[in-house]
Amino acid sequence: MNILFIGDIVGKPGRNAFKEHLPKLKKQYHTDLAIVNGENAAHGKGLTKKIYHELLENGADFVTLGNHAWDKKEIFDFIDDAKQLVRPANYPEGTPGVGLQFVKAKQKDVAIINLMGRTFMNPLDDPFQVIDTLVNEAKKKTNIIFVDFHGEATSEKQAMGWYLDGKVSTVVGTHTHIQTADERILTNGTGYITDVGMTGAYDSILGMEKESIIRKFKTGLPAKFEIPETNRTVLSGLSVSIDDKTGKTNSIKRILINADHINFD
Amino acid sequence: MNILFIGDIVGKPGRNAFKEHLPKLKKQYHTDLAIVNGENAAHGKGLTKKIYHELLENGADFVTLGNHAWDKKEIFDFIDDAKQLVRPANYPEGTPGVGLQFVKAKQKDVAIINLMGRTFMNPLDDPFQVIDTLVNEAKKKTNIIFVDFHGEATSEKQAMGWYLDGKVSTVVGTHTHIQTADERILTNGTGYITDVGMTGAYDSILGMEKESIIRKFKTGLPAKFEIPETNRTVLSGLSVSIDDKTGKTNSIKRILINADHINFD
Amino acid sequence: MNILFIGDIVGKPGRNAFKEHLPKLKKQYHTDLAIVNGENAAHGKGLTKKIYHELLENGADFVTLGNHAWDKKEIFDFIDDAKQLVRPANYPEGTPGVGLQFVKAKQKDVAIINLMGRTFMNPLDDPFQVIDTLVNEAKKKTNIIFVDFHGEATSEKQAMGWYLDGKVSTVVGTHTHIQTADERILTNGTGYITDVGMTGAYDSILGMEKESIIRKFKTGLPAKFEIPETNRTVLSGLSVSIDDKTGKTNSIKRILINADHINFD
Amino acid sequence: MNILFIGDIVGKPGRNAFKEHLPKLKKQYHTDLAIVNGENAAHGKGLTKKIYHELLENGADFVTLGNHAWDKKEIFDFIDDAKQLVRPANYPEGTPGVGLQFVKAKQKDVAIINLMGRTFMNPLDDPFQVIDTLVNEAKKKTNIIFVDFHGEATSEKQAMGWYLDGKVSTVVGTHTHIQTADERILTNGTGYITDVGMTGAYDSILGMEKESIIRKFKTGLPAKFEIPETNRTVLSGLSVSIDDKTGKTNSIKRILINADHINFD
Ligand SMILES: [Fe+2]
Ligand SMILES: [Fe+2]
Ligand SMILES: [Fe+2]
Ligand SMILES: [Fe+2]
Ligand SMILES: [Fe+2]
Ligand SMILES: [Fe+2]
Ligand SMILES: [Fe+2]
Ligand SMILES: [Fe+2]
Repeated sequence: MNILFIGDIVGKPGRNAFKEHLPKLKKQYHTDLAIVNGENAAHGKGLTKKIYHELLENGADFVTLGNHAWDKKEIFDFIDDAKQLVRPANYPEGTPGVGLQFVKAKQKDVAIINLMGRTFMNPLDDPFQVIDTLVNEAKKKTNIIFVDFHGEATSEKQAMGWYLDGKVSTVVGTHTHIQTADERILTNGTGYITDVGMTGAYDSILGMEKESIIRKFKTGLPAKFEIPETNRTVLSGLSVSIDDKTGKTNSIKRILINADHINFD
Repeated sequence: MNILFIGDIVGKPGRNAFKEHLPKLKKQYHTDLAIVNGENAAHGKGLTKKIYHELLENGADFVTLGNHAWDKKEIFDFIDDAKQLVRPANYPEGTPGVGLQFVKAKQKDVAIINLMGRTFMNPLDDPFQVIDTLVNEAKKKTNIIFVDFHGEATSEKQAMGWYLDGKVSTVVGTHTHIQTADERILTNGTGYITDVGMTGAYDSILGMEKESIIRKFKTGLPAKFEIPETNRTVLSGLSVSIDDKTGKTNSIKRILINADHINFD
Repeated sequence: MNILFIGDIVGKPGRNAFKEHLPKLKKQYHTDLAIVNGENAAHGKGLTKKIYHELLENGADFVTLGNHAWDKKEIFDFIDDAKQLVRPANYPEGTPGVGLQFVKAKQKDVAIINLMGRTFMNPLDDPFQVIDTLVNEAKKKTNIIFVDFHGEATSEKQAMGWYLDGKVSTVVGTHTHIQTADERILTNGTGYITDVGMTGAYDSILGMEKESIIRKFKTGLPAKFEIPETNRTVLSGLSVSIDDKTGKTNSIKRILINADHINFD
Repeated sequence: MNILFIGDIVGKPGRNAFKEHLPKLKKQYHTDLAIVNGENAAHGKGLTKKIYHELLENGADFVTLGNHAWDKKEIFDFIDDAKQLVRPANYPEGTPGVGLQFVKAKQKDVAIINLMGRTFMNPLDDPFQVIDTLVNEAKKKTNIIFVDFHGEATSEKQAMGWYLDGKVSTVVGTHTHIQTADERILTNGTGYITDVGMTGAYDSILGMEKESIIRKFKTGLPAKFEIPETNRTVLSGLSVSIDDKTGKTNSIKRILINADHINFD
């Protein structure tokens, strides 16, 4: 089972890069299942129904979210009907949407989990408690479990990776928008990367127009962040090959495509 | 001018990996100046006089620090005499040590600056204001300016990188202990990476024994973090080649040496 | 049912002030049950077995805690046997001690709950979820429910107060060490104050020696905080009169005793 | 010199309470100078030109601000012409408006300073460094110096109070919107209170409609906070009597007017 994961799509440049590169990547990596983090897909903040379907039409099989899940109000209208979408599982009971979803790929069940960290982030239910429950639930149906852990602190993300080592197939970090170089297979067979990075404008700060962010740091005044209009993009992703029986990750390959790194061929 | 930078040395495994790999790396990259971040060199927290000299004896030409600079009280006894050492420059006036230091390499002056971020960190003087002053001061003497920006948030680090683009030779991020994959030369010639990563125990969380950190996340109770005793290490670094005249970075090479990535040869 | 609550005892000056004033206060307010927050009783950090018993001997009927609960390691040795002690209830399952305890006063059961906020504090289980469960449990036995909500942010504390209005007898805030002036009976009969304040050295910062704290703010360097040796103290408390049948608070009286405010007679 | 200070006006209920009570309070306290914090005066967020003038027309002689200073964009249009207005002084150089302003009262100069804390708040210039400069500047003209220190953490506010003891006339805290009961004259003659509290809707959370804030704490989802429409208000203030020669505070009186506390007569 080959799973391709693409990191946080940021606005139009991100959606364009995704659309352009995905077909080649799926061919290159013999992808059976393509997952994409869409929390910033709608102009940097949240996800609309239209863009959710655009991502699926352009080749995504599944979409994950993060802290920006709720930025576009219309998410509340379609999240409960969206079957190829997860939001962080550790929002309290009663939150619209789900944090664990099953999909079929190669006629097998794959469990996809979205989870959020708490360090340097807003209070939320304990991801370590929540993941125990979800992994138990997923295990009833499949050994192939893919986790998008959306978090800020490297310590919390590494801790989650090691905590899940041997319990799930792969843990990918998202949220910092910068790809880390530490992809590896942990001791007990779980594929891991601290952050996949983002997909969007390359000459930017986390996908946003850089001048206004620098100004905010320099002045402390409120600022409006815009998405740059540009064709110079970065796409950040990861491909894992998972043993269909054991659910362990056999190989892991980091993908980074921009003017400076053409990390696939 | 070839500068080799090695990220946060964490305790004994980090010092061992540093000692083992540095000579080969210096040869490999024709290094003229080797800089190492030593804020975690003394058992994960701070720097002693003995270990400062050990780093120099093992091949470092210069040592930078970070938020852990002050963890070992004896730093206050030797920091003002240490000429191959900088601490973050944006501590308030009157703080022991300096944040900008000049060294000679290839008979040229090189300015080395240590600076700290504020997002998700403790309050400190504004790094954007402070760096303006320091760059002006450094420019009087040299075009070759190397900045270790010790920060947590990817946004603040990218903002600093772009802010300094064209004003300094290279900006390396440190502090998160996880190497990022985004090394590049920015539009105006400044070499940049969000985080170089750390040097220490490989099967660890940020260089520390992983069980106690997972326990802390799961229990919320106070915990003592230990350095693992291990030979399985990671070394994280970066080599830049800087134009002696213009001070621009001509090439940038990320270095990651561990059981899974042998990122040099 | 008259309950007297004394805010965070900070070190020896706090214990002295407590010992000195408690008997008079109990007489003055016809106290049936005296509760004291002891999280800083042992030299400003945590609680020892000896000091726990000292507080009881000096007139406390019950002790609550907070984020400093675990600062003295020996707490783990006696907390499970201590029947007049609660720690914040929203630590995860498996944490030593309990967050809800029943005591007898005037031959009636009183439920005492300790709970902790999350805003500007470390991650913890959701206090709003946890309190629902605890209130249900307590209600099976009694209508008299007293909550010490240990939190930093005024918004979270007021939110908890209003959330519990009509469900519990009294909600007292602790942790900021400064008494607030907003004691009142909320619309549905719950007594409330945002923070009771602390009991300890008066010419201090939150009960600690002020020079070292000012120095820390001015330098950003690590500092050791000491408890001042002084007889000039402040005692901060609150007395509520609760209807034994309905569990509603009939009257609420703020107590502040120091050289400038002699808020009882 | 009698100075009356009214804490953060929150929206229309706050402006109404201010208008209603101010004349009586000025008479009661023989006020020579009435200062009001207006950072939340415009529907809870920021200050418009219209409302700035409304506050002055209704009896304020001067307006201070805080972190919400910039919420209404039009502040940038009038702040530089507004002579009875200060914003926090520790925004970086080049920020519109000023942080120190002189006004005449009883034919004497009074220096009014607005300053902001950093603990649990956004990064800003060091308030301890900035205040040194401003006090020196103010001292050239007058001994009567009034400081509104807008901060979250009780430790930082007490530290600032003690730091300025004997250097300024009075330090009032603002921002938490809950009045503290610790008003006093510090050892060297500076009047101090950790927080004056807010002026606005009484049955509210920090002046905002309480249901939506509770919902936010319980769900973690984005929420829109509204100002309640109500006549049940709270007014929070403080009156100090300052020695015109020495600039020391001779007496300090906390003012809290709501349905439960009629703290003046
Ligand atoms: Fe994102
Ligand atoms: Fe995110
Ligand atoms: Fe470090
Ligand atoms: Fe660090
Ligand atoms: Fe406390
Ligand atoms: Fe506390
Ligand atoms: Fe305010
Ligand atoms: Fe504020």
